[in-house]
Amino acid sequence: MEDGKISTRTVKEIAAFVNGQIDGAENTAVVGVAPIDQAQTGFLAFIAQPKYDTFLDTTPAAAILVRPDSPQSKTACLIRVPNPYLAFVRIARELFAIGEPEKHGRHNSAIIANSAEIPDNLSIGPYSVIGENAKIGDATIIGNNSTIAPGARLGKRCQIGNNVTIAHDVIVGNDVIIQAGSVIGSDGFGYVKDQDKYYKIPHVGTVILEDNVEIGVNVTVDRGTFGITRIKKGAKLDNLIQVAHNVVIGENTVIASQSGISGSTEIGDNVIIAGQVGFVGHIKIGNRTTFAAQAGITKSIPDGMTISGYPGRNHTRAKREEAVIRQGPELLKRLRKLEKFIKKHFPSSDEK
Amino acid sequence: MEDGKISTRTVKEIAAFVNGQIDGAENTAVVGVAPIDQAQTGFLAFIAQPKYDTFLDTTPAAAILVRPDSPQSKTACLIRVPNPYLAFVRIARELFAIGEPEKHGRHNSAIIANSAEIPDNLSIGPYSVIGENAKIGDATIIGNNSTIAPGARLGKRCQIGNNVTIAHDVIVGNDVIIQAGSVIGSDGFGYVKDQDKYYKIPHVGTVILEDNVEIGVNVTVDRGTFGITRIKKGAKLDNLIQVAHNVVIGENTVIASQSGISGSTEIGDNVIIAGQVGFVGHIKIGNRTTFAAQAGITKSIPDGMTISGYPGRNHTRAKREEAVIRQGPELLKRLRKLEKFIKKHFPSSDEK
Amino acid sequence: MEDGKISTRTVKEIAAFVNGQIDGAENTAVVGVAPIDQAQTGFLAFIAQPKYDTFLDTTPAAAILVRPDSPQSKTACLIRVPNPYLAFVRIARELFAIGEPEKHGRHNSAIIANSAEIPDNLSIGPYSVIGENAKIGDATIIGNNSTIAPGARLGKRCQIGNNVTIAHDVIVGNDVIIQAGSVIGSDGFGYVKDQDKYYKIPHVGTVILEDNVEIGVNVTVDRGTFGITRIKKGAKLDNLIQVAHNVVIGENTVIASQSGISGSTEIGDNVIIAGQVGFVGHIKIGNRTTFAAQAGITKSIPDGMTISGYPGRNHTRAKREEAVIRQGPELLKRLRKLEKFIKKHFPSSDEK
Repeated sequence: MEDGKISTRTVKEIAAFVNGQIDGAENTAVVGVAPIDQAQTGFLAFIAQPKYDTFLDTTPAAAILVRPDSPQSKTACLIRVPNPYLAFVRIARELFAIGEPEKHGRHNSAIIANSAEIPDNLSIGPYSVIGENAKIGDATIIGNNSTIAPGARLGKRCQIGNNVTIAHDVIVGNDVIIQAGSVIGSDGFGYVKDQDKYYKIPHVGTVILEDNVEIGVNVTVDRGTFGITRIKKGAKLDNLIQVAHNVVIGENTVIASQSGISGSTEIGDNVIIAGQVGFVGHIKIGNRTTFAAQAGITKSIPDGMTISGYPGRNHTRAKREEAVIRQGPELLKRLRKLEKFIKKHFPSSDEK
Repeated sequence: MEDGKISTRTVKEIAAFVNGQIDGAENTAVVGVAPIDQAQTGFLAFIAQPKYDTFLDTTPAAAILVRPDSPQSKTACLIRVPNPYLAFVRIARELFAIGEPEKHGRHNSAIIANSAEIPDNLSIGPYSVIGENAKIGDATIIGNNSTIAPGARLGKRCQIGNNVTIAHDVIVGNDVIIQAGSVIGSDGFGYVKDQDKYYKIPHVGTVILEDNVEIGVNVTVDRGTFGITRIKKGAKLDNLIQVAHNVVIGENTVIASQSGISGSTEIGDNVIIAGQVGFVGHIKIGNRTTFAAQAGITKSIPDGMTISGYPGRNHTRAKREEAVIRQGPELLKRLRKLEKFIKKHFPSSDEK
Repeated sequence: MEDGKISTRTVKEIAAFVNGQIDGAENTAVVGVAPIDQAQTGFLAFIAQPKYDTFLDTTPAAAILVRPDSPQSKTACLIRVPNPYLAFVRIARELFAIGEPEKHGRHNSAIIANSAEIPDNLSIGPYSVIGENAKIGDATIIGNNSTIAPGARLGKRCQIGNNVTIAHDVIVGNDVIIQAGSVIGSDGFGYVKDQDKYYKIPHVGTVILEDNVEIGVNVTVDRGTFGITRIKKGAKLDNLIQVAHNVVIGENTVIASQSGISGSTEIGDNVIIAGQVGFVGHIKIGNRTTFAAQAGITKSIPDGMTISGYPGRNHTRAKREEAVIRQGPELLKRLRKLEKFIKKHFPSSDEK
């Protein structure tokens, strides 16, 4: 997969790029990057956790990014850094161009409205459409068969996948990634009921995705009924997630696959949400909270809590309650034994 | 977002449109609509709940739709109606053209089979495809990169989003909305097992969506194996919902995001289903039932019940059971105390 | 829906095709296939379960596929086979061409890179795109507005729906079905955290779908971070399923709608997973295990187990625990009664 991408770097260049300390020959040549269990001769790997230290003396890798306190290696040149995995990712992307999106240019079948503002270096795939008054930032990449609807604005260096819809007037910041099949700015699920019938509420709000937001595949983000659905700086959403109208998701919050957030709920900053979690509408979730998989959150949660179960509650408490449930059949037996004993020794115990 | 859409109406015209009673100057001019907390000078707002009555004397709005028994306003002209929110939605849509879908005409890149029957006023976006013998009703709007497969029929005034598939021979009524990425009429998950292998069952049935059905984003509705998957008049489905083969969903039933209904299950009329609910196959769900979020429904449910939990059960009962679970660790202590007491005072209590 | 597809077969031909034993007139003409409750004069039906034997004497069907030990029919010619449903499905597909995908040819708007290797009999719909160095096997069918990205390889007789993305370098075997809106080979949800920020890990691995894998609608299968996400031979996935990076799914495993499998988890062979089930990452699920709907699996599971609930546990045990929960409020009363009795008769029982 990396044909033509492999270039050679020296350990000295690499260490300088990540401010690392070299423990070995600084002129060692590095031809590529790989995980420690797959690294071949000439490659750079990393070891972030002591349990992988056994590879230090056996790997054929040319160099290894390691923690400052890592043991030495008999076979490889070490580069000591505070966060070896992060250094590895930065080097892979920026020195070896791994995972960099392909800038494929502007396909002549892409339809771009006359009033749209697009940069010279826009990449846009076949059969995509950019509507009237849309505005796209420098170096943004758009896939195939996608729509940037009228009035939508995308920042710089965004990566938009195939079959994506960015609906009208949605605002997307810089360095935002939206993978294939996701829809940003759909109408929310809002109706007025009259007798048994439901009447659709027009959705005149919009969506704002701030800088460095990343959105997975087939995600749905509804626009505000009035006002804004907002996903703040650096938040990361996995695949198949539902974000309802007027939701706010805080900075650097991460949400795993298939979770859903109901209308007008506000999720704080630095929150961690596992897969298949659900939040009811109109609640407020504190900063630095954590939610276990499949939790069902029915009310507001203060800062810092760890929550699991349905209805969602303090995780430590939930585990103690779970432990009692696990003993249920035995506890029932113990209760019955007591009842039997009392009945036997105190035949009158049945009276009220 | 409303450039060019703003027109001026008088309170008299507006009140006549919704049969409201005017309490103030009937020639007051209204230039737009907005929620009560955002309404500026000249706008129409609404107050449906008494808790917002505090805005009555402070809003700069020109006019407010209110309940018949609403207090008076010092600043705005009132229009009294039985359902202020519904009146607001109707006025927004029909007098101020808010939320009305754009009729964008027939793009010359849309491919329309010769044998397809389409109206003169069809709107269809770039790179969409209409197959042989498909039939589309008057004033229907189809987005970009969508497929109306051979033999499919759509009624009048439907709105079909981008990247939608309406599979072959599916039948869609009038005034149906299907948002981006949804697929109607896919093959269901049906196999015959022989030893360890699974053999796909051909799906020769179809899907019928009746009038006024609304479908969110990235929803999947499988066609019947034999026979029909049917969603009845006025039912509303949110995003990322799964409707399996041969399911029936009743009239005016509403289903929130990420819920799933397994094969051949019948959901009654006027049912309310919250998010992430699951129904097993081959069960029958009564009319006017309600399901709390994340409920898991494993058997048929009679009319009128409110259900929560897994396995789904009467909600009031479920809450009582939940309350006991919440006390589990303390109940265990109380049981132990009794056991200890008995053991101490009746050393022979261990005998059977 | 079957215009022009109906041909006539004799019972003799049909029985020979499935090695069945004829019980009736072998020259009986069959004009089509239908389920037993809908079969009209001249049609072939099947009865796999004794509860449908009541149709044996009342159906107008010309012939019925039945179990070897089925009672006789007064009205129809019988064909006895070990697996009547399987025989019916094979006959429907191969003798009556029901459910066979339409080979619609190569649309002139499909964009096919010069370096792509495609067969003469490729079917590809309008506005689809095949990238550089992609390779497609004989008789494969691709829908509309889909992308086969550079370097991807598809086997023979695959069926790819509309609006599908097969990402770069993904490998797909023979006879694979991928329905509309699914995305195979997206980047996984992998980040390195540094202080509060998250940095995307490049995903340089890929996805392998082996022969006879079938994937429903709007499914997401992420590529390996390094290495492979693999779905093995004959596995079947329903709609809206999430398969994270580096997951392995075993042979002939079936997964119902809206289930999700977190990163690096390995699912064994012949596993049955119901709807809305979730698996945490980095666990190993044994062969021939079964998972009830909405189960939440938090640790590895040995071969052969049946699991339900959250956290997932032995299904029989889970049901016993559930039964105790169901009695919770009554058990609490019984405990209180014992406490009251002890307190009354042993006033000193409150001491420690």
